[in-house]
Amino acid sequence: MKLISGGVCAAQGFRAGGVHCGIRKNRTKRDLSLIVSDVPASAAAVYTTNLVKGAPLTVTKQHLENGIAQAVICNSGNANTCNANGIEIAEQMSALVAARLGLAADDVVVASTGVIGQPLDIAPIADGMAALVSGLSYEGSELAAEGIMTTDTVKKEVAVEFTLGGKTCRLGGIAKGSGMIHPNMATMLVFITTDAAIAPEMLKKALSTDIASTFNMLSIDGDTSTNDMVTVLANGLAGNPVIDTDNDDFAVFMTALNTITVQLCRMIAADGEGATKLLECAVTGAKDEATAKTVAKSVVCSSLLKAAMFGADANWGRVLCAIGYSGADVDVSKVDVAFKSSKGTITVCQNGAGVPFSEEVAKEILLQNEIEILVSVGDGDGAAKAWGCDLTYDYVRINGDYRT
Amino acid sequence: MKLISGGVCAAQGFRAGGVHCGIRKNRTKRDLSLIVSDVPASAAAVYTTNLVKGAPLTVTKQHLENGIAQAVICNSGNANTCNANGIEIAEQMSALVAARLGLAADDVVVASTGVIGQPLDIAPIADGMAALVSGLSYEGSELAAEGIMTTDTVKKEVAVEFTLGGKTCRLGGIAKGSGMIHPNMATMLVFITTDAAIAPEMLKKALSTDIASTFNMLSIDGDTSTNDMVTVLANGLAGNPVIDTDNDDFAVFMTALNTITVQLCRMIAADGEGATKLLECAVTGAKDEATAKTVAKSVVCSSLLKAAMFGADANWGRVLCAIGYSGADVDVSKVDVAFKSSKGTITVCQNGAGVPFSEEVAKEILLQNEIEILVSVGDGDGAAKAWGCDLTYDYVRINGDYRT
Repeated sequence: MKLISGGVCAAQGFRAGGVHCGIRKNRTKRDLSLIVSDVPASAAAVYTTNLVKGAPLTVTKQHLENGIAQAVICNSGNANTCNANGIEIAEQMSALVAARLGLAADDVVVASTGVIGQPLDIAPIADGMAALVSGLSYEGSELAAEGIMTTDTVKKEVAVEFTLGGKTCRLGGIAKGSGMIHPNMATMLVFITTDAAIAPEMLKKALSTDIASTFNMLSIDGDTSTNDMVTVLANGLAGNPVIDTDNDDFAVFMTALNTITVQLCRMIAADGEGATKLLECAVTGAKDEATAKTVAKSVVCSSLLKAAMFGADANWGRVLCAIGYSGADVDVSKVDVAFKSSKGTITVCQNGAGVPFSEEVAKEILLQNEIEILVSVGDGDGAAKAWGCDLTYDYVRINGDYRT
Repeated sequence: MKLISGGVCAAQGFRAGGVHCGIRKNRTKRDLSLIVSDVPASAAAVYTTNLVKGAPLTVTKQHLENGIAQAVICNSGNANTCNANGIEIAEQMSALVAARLGLAADDVVVASTGVIGQPLDIAPIADGMAALVSGLSYEGSELAAEGIMTTDTVKKEVAVEFTLGGKTCRLGGIAKGSGMIHPNMATMLVFITTDAAIAPEMLKKALSTDIASTFNMLSIDGDTSTNDMVTVLANGLAGNPVIDTDNDDFAVFMTALNTITVQLCRMIAADGEGATKLLECAVTGAKDEATAKTVAKSVVCSSLLKAAMFGADANWGRVLCAIGYSGADVDVSKVDVAFKSSKGTITVCQNGAGVPFSEEVAKEILLQNEIEILVSVGDGDGAAKAWGCDLTYDYVRINGDYRT
């Protein structure tokens, strides 16, 4: 697995682009992105579990019933959710792309992100389509990554190169994250492309399996979005033997997929709304993986711990507290906690009670921008990781007046 | 039901007091409180569901096995939780009170609140006991209310007067709240006293029933404390016929109890860490009460909505979103949402979609410090209320460096 550049255009035969079409008032902010495969691709997606679902998800779900897609259209600035005409607008978005590219409308994945409950005007999207399509390029991943950003402060792109059946394959993705992120299925917008050849049902299996330990283990603020979606398009242009069963090649593909989804999780967490720090909670020693996951998620979701991490305060009692109310079956008298960063590791709690430690050393460790919270809950085999970020003044500022 | 002053000393035969004994460095802050009944009282308590439980809870639970108590000792500044010698210290606290007042140690309720995981030194408590006891008075509720405060900015006291069997009865309480408050059983420290005569088992029933719609419907930050406890002492000095069955007097008692617990919930929410606004979410039209409760809690727990309320932003999409991920069985296409305050009521969403409304009027309504979020989810009979507060810069500031 070699990390490479190129994002969603790293794989052969994918063009991408992004423009400002006018959904957002700020003319310097791209608000419409497109990703297109040169040939039809196997396609899979996972969606938010929120009962309130954005209209684009309903339309995309229908379009992916046959497991094939060739393009992804996504706007930012408006979630097209809780609007009476939402489905109609999402279908129009697909139709506009299809007409312009000569595709069937049901080969288009459609997504939206932004404010909920404000009707989405199709006019700027229709007007922007010519520029969007003419701007498509095999180096356009960055533009597409920009066009899906909402309160994100940095573009999120990653790609990896690997080999299947002697053929060089590539797999890359872009993501938007930032707020309203919580681990209940697919938790943000993520678009992944690959030139590996893989059957739709195996692609679906790969994605569903992978998200259980990646995007479902990521929380920014405990709010599960209405518009979350992770999609993968696999166009097969790498020429590898088609993966149509759970074989060795599938395992390699899974590793490639996991490499980029973990990176995207970390990028999304590090760029959580207002975040100054990436938090990773690694739990070991649980009786099973599910228990470890429950503990890890509870820790990264604790507002109190998140605020303490913002303040570089080694307040490990809040870690214990979050473990205690997680609902996980653990013996709290066997819990060990340590904080780790590039400046070292410090143990702060053993067997559920505090141990003497240097507050100065702890402070230096916690002042870094990537913090690992190491939790051992016993001598079982269950392990899991979860990602999150600190809770800061800026989270409040950003969300106190998001619409204006 | 008449609201009166006096807090935990409103009822006959209850003295209270509070001193600074030295657990806290700030000498102007009381950190040790005591409430004493002139005679043994029926006693009941409910406790946090967090697996990590403060040592005082374990000790109190033992002491209340016989349903009788006569005093409550509580310190702030240290939670006596996750300490190797916690039980021992909590027992010493009880013993010190018992010795000084001539009671049995198991007639003392013991509670602690503050930082987790720092050993609690018994010395200042022992040294302060003489002053604490000599300062007890029948007008001392305020001092006791001060002594249990942590990051609370205001004392929380309330009392009510009512009649049972022709006798005037009083019931009052004090509370500390502020942070680490989430609806999973008893959710903060609340001490309630009454001179009504009621059997221990009926007192227990009254408390357990009441908290389901009061303290369990209150969230400040989604973190369930390790030290939450609500206790009631009923000393019978009012001379009413002892309530020992589920009769009309019991119903009156329940109403009295509910009157003060709802007030305390509102006070705790309004004084949530960093809060500028009290939020009350009132859900109607659910298929049953449990569904209504789930919806109401999810709304007041949403970080995004809480931040929007701080910004007086009528971002109702976040209400819909929180309903959607609550897990409640509701038809989101039938949801109506309105915001209400002393400045009026404004409907912002009907049948799951936005309706035109004046942003200016909405802003004026949301700029008040008590906001009602009215949610109708259908035509069922299920209704519930939940309380919370907005998410502010100060929440982050307070929790970013709590220990220093």
